[in-house]
Amino acid sequence: MLMTLVDGRQVAGVPADDRGLTYGDGVFRTLAVRNGHVCWWPRHYAKLAADCIALDIRPPEPETLFGDIQTITARLAHCALRITVTRGSGGRGYARPAVSHTRRIVSAGPLPDYPAGWSTAGVAVRICDLRLSEQPALAGIKHLGRLENVLARAEWNDPAIAEGLLQDSAGRIVEGTRCNLFLVEKDGLVTPDLSLCGVAGLTRDLVIESAIRHGLRCSVEPIDLKRLESATEVFLVNSLIGVWPVATLGHLKWRKFVAAPLVRKWLDAFENPPA
Amino acid sequence: MLMTLVDGRQVAGVPADDRGLTYGDGVFRTLAVRNGHVCWWPRHYAKLAADCIALDIRPPEPETLFGDIQTITARLAHCALRITVTRGSGGRGYARPAVSHTRRIVSAGPLPDYPAGWSTAGVAVRICDLRLSEQPALAGIKHLGRLENVLARAEWNDPAIAEGLLQDSAGRIVEGTRCNLFLVEKDGLVTPDLSLCGVAGLTRDLVIESAIRHGLRCSVEPIDLKRLESATEVFLVNSLIGVWPVATLGHLKWRKFVAAPLVRKWLDAFENPPA
Repeated sequence: MLMTLVDGRQVAGVPADDRGLTYGDGVFRTLAVRNGHVCWWPRHYAKLAADCIALDIRPPEPETLFGDIQTITARLAHCALRITVTRGSGGRGYARPAVSHTRRIVSAGPLPDYPAGWSTAGVAVRICDLRLSEQPALAGIKHLGRLENVLARAEWNDPAIAEGLLQDSAGRIVEGTRCNLFLVEKDGLVTPDLSLCGVAGLTRDLVIESAIRHGLRCSVEPIDLKRLESATEVFLVNSLIGVWPVATLGHLKWRKFVAAPLVRKWLDAFENPPA
Repeated sequence: MLMTLVDGRQVAGVPADDRGLTYGDGVFRTLAVRNGHVCWWPRHYAKLAADCIALDIRPPEPETLFGDIQTITARLAHCALRITVTRGSGGRGYARPAVSHTRRIVSAGPLPDYPAGWSTAGVAVRICDLRLSEQPALAGIKHLGRLENVLARAEWNDPAIAEGLLQDSAGRIVEGTRCNLFLVEKDGLVTPDLSLCGVAGLTRDLVIESAIRHGLRCSVEPIDLKRLESATEVFLVNSLIGVWPVATLGHLKWRKFVAAPLVRKWLDAFENPPA
């Protein structure tokens, strides 16, 4: 990490009794800073706060958190920020403390340096063996317990494979290890339902909203492997990668945004919003 | 916490990029120190190491870890130890670093001060609303992602209720929020199967082994609510509480170890082993 602030201060570390460490009792977000601009900050804050509230963690005040971020971006105009919010220290075992003091941890690392072709020619993906477990109480929330993602990501070493797709126990396609997923079908989009598992990223929300504004159909549905394989196009999204078309999945090959002029037009607008 | 060592040193905290904090990428154990004796240390180490290996984390050397523990027990003859082992810092996102440096965190807190009657007259328990998710890749492992336990423990505030029992999505009884569970049926024991979810605690192993040595039947099976309600007796175990008989579950009442003389005899031997 290039720089880290814990509760606004540059300190050596996080207390060992922080419940984020001891129990995964917290949430996080990853966002891009480009030319000193914190991309989509108000929307990221809204999702962070919503995830906190879902776990009954008091969200940090937006001004306080943005103050931390500005301390960092004053020095680092281009970076990937990770914002972690935990329930803080204390409590007896799993029981939450009667009064908890939310802890905020803001870290900056370098923006990832992916091959340029990944956002133009598209990426190769694989299907992971690990199946996500269904937990409606935590589905969609970007909480700190991400061992499933770690295990799934450990399944391959080939640097030519950009991402692994995850299925739930019933074989429905849910997401990538670090991104959300959209299928193009005719002139509409569909993205997996995340009410049982998965992380609902901000870029997924932005794509859904933008598509609907552009008059594209965009639905949220359970998606099985067969439907994925039948899609006209497939693309991956998150806050750092933006949009990656999927070029290949095993023997399957997709062509990039040739079959859907409406989607192409929408994507141009999404990737190059008016200033 | 009374005292904490991170990689053997008393430092202010754990680095903010520790994967235990960022992804729940680690495991832990809780054990009792009484009169300077670290109860069941070799067995706790064996389970800790097995959990590490299941996640492909290099376990710390037992001598190194026990050195940390001795530094603490030299000062604190009575305490509850928490040993946390994480994959350390680093890696790019969920991908594990090519070479990882396992981090060990050993903390001492006071031994919990439960009402004396809980281990003699028994405890009141409830059934939690939250259902555990099934994840065979992580089942049994005491990993750091314990938000399900946190959410379940937050369901009640009544201090007279000692524990909440957890079901899986199919309604099978799995464990308590912080302990394992045994049913007494006639003159034998049965404990829930943990191949889909739950934490396999050391005391559970010890009970199974001891019961079999004493000629009691002890099986591991899926257990539904009806079978729980039909049990002659029910008891909870973990390394800090030892054995708690369950006295009541809602309107259900159990009498403590009256119906099963063989179990009573075994329990006496288990709780008062020959010196």
